Amino acid sequence: MVFLTRRERFCCAHRLYKEEWSDKKNLEVFGKCSNANWHGHNYVLYVTVKGEIKEETGYVVNLKSLSSLIETHVINKLDHKNMNLEVDFMKGKIASTENLAIAIWEVLEPHIIKLDIELHRIKVEETENNFVEYFG
Amino acid sequence: MVFLTRRERFCCAHRLYKEEWSDKKNLEVFGKCSNANWHGHNYVLYVTVKGEIKEETGYVVNLKSLSSLIETHVINKLDHKNMNLEVDFMKGKIASTENLAIAIWEVLEPHIIKLDIELHRIKVEETENNFVEYFG
Amino acid sequence: MVFLTRRERFCCAHRLYKEEWSDKKNLEVFGKCSNANWHGHNYVLYVTVKGEIKEETGYVVNLKSLSSLIETHVINKLDHKNMNLEVDFMKGKIASTENLAIAIWEVLEPHIIKLDIELHRIKVEETENNFVEYFG
Amino acid sequence: MVFLTRRERFCCAHRLYKEEWSDKKNLEVFGKCSNANWHGHNYVLYVTVKGEIKEETGYVVNLKSLSSLIETHVINKLDHKNMNLEVDFMKGKIASTENLAIAIWEVLEPHIIKLDIELHRIKVEETENNFVEYFG
Amino acid sequence: MVFLTRRERFCCAHRLYKEEWSDKKNLEVFGKCSNANWHGHNYVLYVTVKGEIKEETGYVVNLKSLSSLIETHVINKLDHKNMNLEVDFMKGKIASTENLAIAIWEVLEPHIIKLDIELHRIKVEETENNFVEYFG
Amino acid sequence: MVFLTRRERFCCAHRLYKEEWSDKKNLEVFGKCSNANWHGHNYVLYVTVKGEIKEETGYVVNLKSLSSLIETHVINKLDHKNMNLEVDFMKGKIASTENLAIAIWEVLEPHIIKLDIELHRIKVEETENNFVEYFG
Repeated sequence: MVFLTRRERFCCAHRLYKEEWSDKKNLEVFGKCSNANWHGHNYVLYVTVKGEIKEETGYVVNLKSLSSLIETHVINKLDHKNMNLEVDFMKGKIASTENLAIAIWEVLEPHIIKLDIELHRIKVEETENNFVEYFG
Repeated sequence: MVFLTRRERFCCAHRLYKEEWSDKKNLEVFGKCSNANWHGHNYVLYVTVKGEIKEETGYVVNLKSLSSLIETHVINKLDHKNMNLEVDFMKGKIASTENLAIAIWEVLEPHIIKLDIELHRIKVEETENNFVEYFG
Repeated sequence: MVFLTRRERFCCAHRLYKEEWSDKKNLEVFGKCSNANWHGHNYVLYVTVKGEIKEETGYVVNLKSLSSLIETHVINKLDHKNMNLEVDFMKGKIASTENLAIAIWEVLEPHIIKLDIELHRIKVEETENNFVEYFG
Repeated sequence: MVFLTRRERFCCAHRLYKEEWSDKKNLEVFGKCSNANWHGHNYVLYVTVKGEIKEETGYVVNLKSLSSLIETHVINKLDHKNMNLEVDFMKGKIASTENLAIAIWEVLEPHIIKLDIELHRIKVEETENNFVEYFG
Repeated sequence: MVFLTRRERFCCAHRLYKEEWSDKKNLEVFGKCSNANWHGHNYVLYVTVKGEIKEETGYVVNLKSLSSLIETHVINKLDHKNMNLEVDFMKGKIASTENLAIAIWEVLEPHIIKLDIELHRIKVEETENNFVEYFG
Repeated sequence: MVFLTRRERFCCAHRLYKEEWSDKKNLEVFGKCSNANWHGHNYVLYVTVKGEIKEETGYVVNLKSLSSLIETHVINKLDHKNMNLEVDFMKGKIASTENLAIAIWEVLEPHIIKLDIELHRIKVEETENNFVEYFG
């Protein structure tokens, strides 16, 4: 079993808040991340897959196929977008890095499986000082 | 003459567009950076000052004074904000990295001079692949 | 189960040596790391916690609480200090990165548990070329 | 149990291709990585070992011993070489990062064991956007 | 005057040698960089241009135009190629980072000028420990 | 004229203080950097030289010669040492990054000149957030 990781990036606006809470409560819980006019990040995404090496190619999977799949289903949806307003798989969810990592897993996994490999880990870096990992 | 650089970071939403242009024209010129619902970045700011070393301290300037000045006048204004809507020194300007670098220079320089040093360079990184430098 | 990691930094002097050994023996075993007048590093600490996402916040844990806890119990004790002479939780131990990682785990875990999450991993980078991980 | 990682680097030429395939088929499968005149990379290798801390030294293992072992058996064989033509442990294999990671594991493990520790992970970065991990 | 920098990457095989010299002399002068079967690097290229900000766009130049120009004239020629055998603008030159930086300047400058900006600097990183800069 | 930069690293203990000042005054001016039991850093040094490309080699200077010269005269003196107590060229000086950069320039320049190139810049990074540059 070998693990292969692809790194991709996307730039996104977002805001942490709960509609049913007052502005004051949102501010208390989420602090400046709750700013009403949004803020944003350069997110870094690491997708790790695992599988046996295909003898014919020496690959677990062709990186181009993996990268193109991530681009189609994740990057194109998030990059230069508003995570709260424009990203279908984040609708109705708090736009935290935790929820984002799980949502990306759920979006990617059905497509990854078709490449005859398993999804192992989604890692999302929000800033150089914090990141989230989800293993399914 | 010695050059001292301080690195600071801020997270910001922004959008590139010209009010007097149609959405179509904005899209043609600015592409996805013109997304109506904003996007955002982890900006990295490098402030370089120059001066003689003070014999008493071995410093060009006390980094704490420099850093606190940058925080007060720049980071607190930009971090977790919307660059187009909430940042006084960007009002009425296209929110490009170029305009941002010049605006930061103009905001910082009068305060830097009071520390008995000169501002030499403002460098702003928008992503790992592009940055802007301004020397006054 | 989601994993959240916070990165923090501290600058520290230290020295590897065993009191009961001669200088010669210390030098043989620890090489230049045994230098009698100390040397130092910019350490990078990664604290990884795990837990379920709280539905109310979308967080595993509020990063500010986690970061403030690390600052109080670890960074303030180590930063700009002498690891051998001034850090209570390293007293009587060889100041290796391995021992440091375990000591940080032991200091942090009781506080982490109170945040209703589990400590998963302590990672300590001593230089860009070596780091240590401890999982309890 | 503590995990210790050493980072090393090597520069290498290589080419992905299967001798029994036509140039056209190689190009279809491996794309530009199949370029007949080679291309190359700055590979980054992370060797992670695990073991108990030796009470006498505070070390899992002396980093100098580990590093010198990696240099002798891996770096000296690969650095400034052609991975397909000159590296004994890659002979007859497709020069993919996956195969390379496994080959390095097989070369290193017998020597690592003699240091009274276990090999835990081989991680090989080919570019800043992709890396492979092998755990034996 | 504002300075804008674009970062691009390419992977390349190369070899340092002088045809008129014996293998022994080449080895004496260029060491392992002269390996007859090539080696390679992940080169990082920084192209810095300068100009006035266009009032209409807030740009010195549209990054997409700049990036596409670098891709067409430099990256496509070098990426996944053999610098000595396949790159027209390196023919007959020793494949050093110094010569490469100058050659890239000469290739890019006529195209940069057409964007109504000036080329300021070509920076080429060969490894994390060495890079070359050329200012024309 | 081409500029070539070599990156080197050293780990060092140091302390900022003025002997003729009281502990209280030292603390006021230098803060935690004045800690009596020292602290330390992983310093990163960038040495930039400039010169014409030698036609015979394609080099401004052989990197091995440059690197070995830096190692002999700078790294070996500073690495795993106490900057205040053990480094001849820092004796009697406040151990600030500014003074260190100038001292390294003065130590290196006479040796650099013998390589038939000019020293252009000494850059010293103390942490990821601050660095000093000196141009002679």
